[in-house]
Amino acid sequence: MKVALLSGGVGGARFACGLVNAVDPGDVTVIGNVGDDLDVLGLAVSPDLDSILYALAGLHDEERGWGRAGETWEALGTVSALSGEDWFRLGDRDLGLHLVRSQALRAGEPLSTVTMRLARALGVEATILPATDDRLRTWIDTPAGSFPFQEWFVARGHRDEVDGVRFEGDAAPAPGVLEALAEADAIVIAPSNPYVSIWPILAVEEIRAALIARRVPCVAVSPLVGGRAVKGPADRMLARMAGGTGPEHVAACYAGLIDALVVDESDPAGPLAVRRIVTQTLMTDLDASRRLAETVLGAAA
Amino acid sequence: MKVALLSGGVGGARFACGLVNAVDPGDVTVIGNVGDDLDVLGLAVSPDLDSILYALAGLHDEERGWGRAGETWEALGTVSALSGEDWFRLGDRDLGLHLVRSQALRAGEPLSTVTMRLARALGVEATILPATDDRLRTWIDTPAGSFPFQEWFVARGHRDEVDGVRFEGDAAPAPGVLEALAEADAIVIAPSNPYVSIWPILAVEEIRAALIARRVPCVAVSPLVGGRAVKGPADRMLARMAGGTGPEHVAACYAGLIDALVVDESDPAGPLAVRRIVTQTLMTDLDASRRLAETVLGAAA
Repeated sequence: MKVALLSGGVGGARFACGLVNAVDPGDVTVIGNVGDDLDVLGLAVSPDLDSILYALAGLHDEERGWGRAGETWEALGTVSALSGEDWFRLGDRDLGLHLVRSQALRAGEPLSTVTMRLARALGVEATILPATDDRLRTWIDTPAGSFPFQEWFVARGHRDEVDGVRFEGDAAPAPGVLEALAEADAIVIAPSNPYVSIWPILAVEEIRAALIARRVPCVAVSPLVGGRAVKGPADRMLARMAGGTGPEHVAACYAGLIDALVVDESDPAGPLAVRRIVTQTLMTDLDASRRLAETVLGAAA
Repeated sequence: MKVALLSGGVGGARFACGLVNAVDPGDVTVIGNVGDDLDVLGLAVSPDLDSILYALAGLHDEERGWGRAGETWEALGTVSALSGEDWFRLGDRDLGLHLVRSQALRAGEPLSTVTMRLARALGVEATILPATDDRLRTWIDTPAGSFPFQEWFVARGHRDEVDGVRFEGDAAPAPGVLEALAEADAIVIAPSNPYVSIWPILAVEEIRAALIARRVPCVAVSPLVGGRAVKGPADRMLARMAGGTGPEHVAACYAGLIDALVVDESDPAGPLAVRRIVTQTLMTDLDASRRLAETVLGAAA
């Protein structure tokens, strides 16, 4: 069973780990968000792709939720001592990847090619693709002004309420993305923040069009548990922009694009425009992630 | 007493430490070699400037002879795992500096300005200047072909015999260099490799002209002890290109530019075109470096 997974960072990466334990990893293509990519210290950083990569390679820090296990922070310590750009936390092990990727990108290698090469080098069997090789950037409109995603999320600690989300850049799908969607037996939207993790992927017009024209089921997993985000500002954003944190508000983010929504047992019942699948969605460990993936695939079958 | 010091990396950096203990550090300007600067992993690396900077800031690794004390190598480990450019040893702490400097250079800040800013941030009171802000690169001609300095030195382990040294780039002195030479009460050439550490500085025509037109004494310190290099290939290069490793062969490298040569007690006597000062030149510790600097300044007084 071939699966195409649209995914953001941490939650999506955790789901991806369950997915590759539920089906043949070689049959999985993860299409990752690049809207929160950024240049920091002259390096091209792709936080969501890296979360997916590190998780699938087994190198991720389970507790911190992002970055690499056993990480050290010596380089950033020097950067701070020299009054350099130290607001974005780049660990030493992580830095090595950013250096290699940045050099490859400057040499003209597309992000998708670099990403596949890095994944292969780290022993990842699934295919990881950026939604696009083009520049696509998420902007967050708040009462305090508009900010690039990471400035709002990291530098300002995502404290500003969000009035809207915009995407800068006229981006085409990366090579392999449309093929993966066309060949998939199921399309899955990971339990990621709809606005800032999945919408930037859907901001690539041809990806959205492919989902609209899909001939296989598309199942989304709600990132909320009992109306609350497990991590991050998804619940606050849904409350303010969609008018609530029920399954129907999550489903509305994907109107016309999904056939079913997987929600947690603790989430409220009520009318839903798409099929509702109720299960335990909290991914407390790999087994829980795998079971969630199996439920999702069962719903798509 | 104001001193301008022409210096390469390790030996020169060690001498600079003695010098700032012998005179007011604020009266010392170190003019550093940039001929072996390189781009690695997209970063602008200035090995000799950094050796001087780390030594004067007390951050250098005394045993290894280059780089920072307490260094770790996590980032490079990732680079290796990803089949990246790992031939040049960049430690994590060191990387932080390269990141900050590279970003500043890309933003248009001249190397001299960045270098002064970094030195100030690390509490260095002496002035450290690159010989030039322009691109100047040392090429090594060998029987196996011509190589950029670091490719010969690091990647090929400086095993190839050297037939000649060339300098690429039409470089002007960095701001402050000619002023430091003009205001100095003494000009000192550090115990560095004449060919690959000092000649690249002298390859900047206006610096060479300033030395020729000097009105104050210029004293060089031989990098050899008993005709042998303390470290590196200086003795082999002198034997092959100057015909020997005596004081006269070192002095010949600086013909017309120096008034005195400081040599070790173990070096052979024999005719010398400039004044010979005999002392213990081996810088076994900071005291020895300071005593050597005092001897040099005494000779210049």
